[in-house]
Formats: sequence, C-alpha cells, structure tokens
Amino acid sequence: MSQAQPSILLRELLHARQRIRHLVRRTPLEYSPSLSARLGVPVYLKLESQQITGSFKLRGASNAVALLDDAQKARGVVAASTGNHGRALAHAATAQGVQATICLSRLVPQNKVQAIRDLGARVVIVGDSQDDAQAEAERIAREEGATLLPPFDHPHIIAGQGTLGLEILEQLPEVRQVLVPLSGGGLFAGVALAMNYADPSIRLHGISMRRGAAMHASLAAGHPVEVEELPTLADSLGGGIGLDNRYTFAITRALCDQVHLLDEASIAAGIRHAYREERQVVEGAGAVGIAALLDGLIEPEGPVVVVVSGRNIAIEQHLRVITEDPCHG
Amino acid sequence: MSQAQPSILLRELLHARQRIRHLVRRTPLEYSPSLSARLGVPVYLKLESQQITGSFKLRGASNAVALLDDAQKARGVVAASTGNHGRALAHAATAQGVQATICLSRLVPQNKVQAIRDLGARVVIVGDSQDDAQAEAERIAREEGATLLPPFDHPHIIAGQGTLGLEILEQLPEVRQVLVPLSGGGLFAGVALAMNYADPSIRLHGISMRRGAAMHASLAAGHPVEVEELPTLADSLGGGIGLDNRYTFAITRALCDQVHLLDEASIAAGIRHAYREERQVVEGAGAVGIAALLDGLIEPEGPVVVVVSGRNIAIEQHLRVITEDPCHG
Repeated sequence: MSQAQPSILLRELLHARQRIRHLVRRTPLEYSPSLSARLGVPVYLKLESQQITGSFKLRGASNAVALLDDAQKARGVVAASTGNHGRALAHAATAQGVQATICLSRLVPQNKVQAIRDLGARVVIVGDSQDDAQAEAERIAREEGATLLPPFDHPHIIAGQGTLGLEILEQLPEVRQVLVPLSGGGLFAGVALAMNYADPSIRLHGISMRRGAAMHASLAAGHPVEVEELPTLADSLGGGIGLDNRYTFAITRALCDQVHLLDEASIAAGIRHAYREERQVVEGAGAVGIAALLDGLIEPEGPVVVVVSGRNIAIEQHLRVITEDPCHG
Repeated sequence: MSQAQPSILLRELLHARQRIRHLVRRTPLEYSPSLSARLGVPVYLKLESQQITGSFKLRGASNAVALLDDAQKARGVVAASTGNHGRALAHAATAQGVQATICLSRLVPQNKVQAIRDLGARVVIVGDSQDDAQAEAERIAREEGATLLPPFDHPHIIAGQGTLGLEILEQLPEVRQVLVPLSGGGLFAGVALAMNYADPSIRLHGISMRRGAAMHASLAAGHPVEVEELPTLADSLGGGIGLDNRYTFAITRALCDQVHLLDEASIAAGIRHAYREERQVVEGAGAVGIAALLDGLIEPEGPVVVVVSGRNIAIEQHLRVITEDPCHG
C-alpha cells in the first residue's frame, strides 16, 4: 500500500486491543476437522459469532466510544445500521455510560430491532434503505450534537475490527490465508491491516454475496459506486460503501488478493455446514467464508482461517435453511 | 463438609488452573436476556459447549494427563467413556504427546466414536453398558501398564473440572446460584468446591434426567447404588457412579443444596430454547440447567449461572428436537 493512501498504523490496532480488552470477548479459533479433511490443509474458524452481541461489530464500536472525549460522551452517539452495528453500538455505549440512538431502515429484521431496544438504545425507524437511515442519523447528529459513528468507514472502527486480526495472529501465528466477509469493508480492512503488518504474503480473500456487492462493484469500477440493495441471506453484508468513502475502499483495494461472490444457495450451504458439522448457529454473512471453501473457490494452501462474523439470524430463517438440505431431501 | 470426608484443597484447583491454562479455552459467560426476563433476575450461561472438543471434560482430562510422570506418559492412558470424556482424553493425551486408548459401549452414538478416532486415540468397543467398557479399560490397564483415568471419580479430574468454577467466579464474582448437570459428579464436585470455597452461601443445584439418575438414587439411599441405564436425550448423564465411589458421592452429598430431575420433554424444551433464544447448539446433558429454569424449579434469586456443559449431540437428533416444537406446531 503506497504512503499516499489512507492507512492506519499498527500501533492504533495494538492500542485498540488494550483499550477494549475488558469490553469484548477473545473469541475461539476452532479447528474444523470436516473442512480440513475437505481441503487437505488445516482450516480454522474464528468464531466471532460467539462475540458479545453476536457479531464482530462490538470491537469497533467499543473502541470508537472509548475514544470520545467527556463532552462527546455526554451528548451521546448516533448511527445508521443494518442491525449488527446498531446492536453493538447500543451495547458498547451502554457499557460505557453513553446514550446511543440507532437509525434503522424498514428492511432490518424485527428480531434485530428488538434486540437493540433491549440494550437500552433509542431506536428510530425510517425509510427503505440504508441511505435513508443514514440521512436521519446525520440530521440527529447535526441537530442534537450527538457523535455520528458510521458502521465501517472510520479509523477507530477499523482499528477496533483489526483487533480480531491480532487475535488470529496470536492464536495461529502460522496462518497463510484469511477469508473475511466483505461488505462496507470495516472488518476486512481491520483484519487485512493486521495480517499485512504481520506478513505481507498472507493471502486475504474478501467474500460477498452476488446480490448487491457494493465493494466488489466499486473495486471493479476503480471508485466507490452505488448498487441496488436486494434481499439476501447475507443481509448483514447489504448496503453501500458510501460515495465519499475515505478509508475502507482504498485499504481493501490495496490489500485484498481476491474477491469471491456467492449465490444464495452457496450461502445456505455454508449456514447448513456450520450447523451440521460445527454445531454453530451463524447468520448468512457469517457463513460466506465456509461457503467459499465448500464451493472450491480457495486454493488449498494452509493453514486457512475463516472469519465467522456473526450469529444474528432470524431463527425461523435459520430453521428453514437447515431443514431445506438439498442433499438430505 | 466435615474433615473426615474426602475433599480437594482450593490450591489443587488453583494449581490445575495454571497447569491447563494453555490447554483449554476460557469459555464465555453469556448473559441471557430471555431467561433473565423470565426469572426476573440476571441469568448467565457458562458456555462450556464452546470448549475445545465440545465439552467441559477437556479440563479434567488435561489436568490428569499433565500430572502423570514421564514413565506413565510413555505407557499411555486408558479410559471407559460415554463419549465426552473419551473425546476429551483423546485430545488431551494427543496434545501432550501421550497415547490414549478409549473403551466404549455399543450404546455410544457413532458420531462420538468417530470423533474420538479422529483425535488419534485407539478405540475399543465392547459390551452394552458403561460397566462392560469399564471392565475392559481395567483389563488394558493391568495388562499393558497404561494409566486408567476414570471419567469423574479422581481428584485430578475433579480439580480440572473445578477450574470451570474458578472461571465463573472471575467472570461474575456476585454469583448467587449455580445450576450444574449432575451425573457421576465430577463436574458438580469441581464446580461446587470452587463455589463453596468462595462463599458457602452460594446455592448449588444438581440437575439430572429422571431416567437413570444414579447420583440422585445414591444420595437418597445414603450410599452409592446402581440404577438401570436407559436411553435419554441427556445421554452424557447416563452411567453409574461406581459402588466403590471415593470422592464425588461424598462431595456432592456435602455440597449439593438440591437435586432436580427432569423428564425428556423438559430436556427437549431446554435444547430448543438454547437454539431459538440463545443461538447455541447444545446436547441434552448441556441443556438441563436451562430446562430446570424453564420448568420453574429454581427460586429466582440472582445472579444465576447455568453451566451449559457440552454440544456433542448427534445432529439428526438435534434437528428432530428443534423442529418438534409443541408450541409452534
């Protein structure tokens, strides 16, 4: 990555790690016998689905809230979110005595909305898209003085997600490839920075769903572009990357070796595999790395780490997916 | 507990904690919004189902293997096991460069047998009961010089399981009640000792299935008795406590405030709740604490910690249980 591009220093990641150590969970890195047998190299799952609030988003949110000054903390934080960021920010803010306001589009599943309310946040539901929710969050920030914490394109958020990469490096220093769900790029950028600082030869794969992969379309165009937001099993990966993207697009472009796009059937197969073989409940976005391995998209050079990013799936949807197994009738 | 009865010092638990620190996972203590709302007091799940090998048994096995001398390590270890102990011992022995031989009865589910073989252990399948498997393990110990490591009635095993109790105390020092699955009593004794040393007023509940609860029958009789082993959803809780029981019976009798017995429908409800509300796959034995709360058996005085002991359930059985929800057709 050239010096001219925006980056985040390794020390920011290390500092984030210390700062959020008592606010987030060190999640398991679980050896997968079934995926290892399938690929012929050791495969490990980074079970961030077992993070507090059920997704990796707590890392970035905790770091960003902790870095506010006292006056900012007193005025609260606000965010637009497809769900996991809102849930994480609500938890992170409450844990640090800060009021959170979360703006959601009407597309966000009801289970996620209720979970955010239960965490003590004020919830504002507006519009039919991530963009509408974002506009409302910006209005609240302007008019109420709350600090707008975006879900991914912010150095404190990226550094927080990067702590997941540092943990992988501690748990498996010999890691050769990492598969990371790719949406706005906050998780990808954070993990990729950690890996790239550790050893630039570690291969970094970004995995998205075929339906509405904004980062992939932006990388192809050479600049941030908008895509149509469509319903997908990997709903946490939906939403644009922002036409004024400042960090995650450039970092992803610099560090991502390959992007893989998955159809809905593959994502469903990933969810089923996680349940049947690993006894883990994961959401669609969390299952894309497993799905990419099952689809044979990754050259088997190990050890491989798959970031399983979250478990916040509507349980009826999960039940439908695991009982619709095409191989078992 | 009077001095005349067998006990294990707190320092043994603390020493075990240091000894196995790098061999086992510090598992999450997860706040349960749904169970807390139901009981009106904070309820936490100690997710030992996320332990390496999928159950708490790794703690005791790792401690016992680590305490062997070099000559014993060279001759290997042997055990009879309904599954989780064998799996854990196989992993613990392999991790420490020791050969494990595991004797199983024909009642042990095939998924557990294969998992033990995959961990590098020699598997011997014999007889129709835990007792038959136990006799074979004793023969191998006699004839081959391997060290017999029993699944529960051994001070090193109990001290290892006690590390789970120490973790709970670190994670939630204000804990008031702990619900522990109760079978042979290794887990119960270890956790109960830790809690009792910390504060003798912490209430300790042992939870068993109604079908074949050997410890409960023994407590009622005042001495170890045999019970008929019957198929149950909580198959990890099956098996006798040994007529020559030396440790777990006395410790359980001294420290257990109440034993609760559950029917199969309640255990199934516990498994369903863990899946639907907590997004956790747990085996029947691991779900009994949740089931006891759902059945209203525990006086709501909090915080309550429920030990969720394992996830090693045959996945078709799990699928059957979660799709048979009596409340949702």
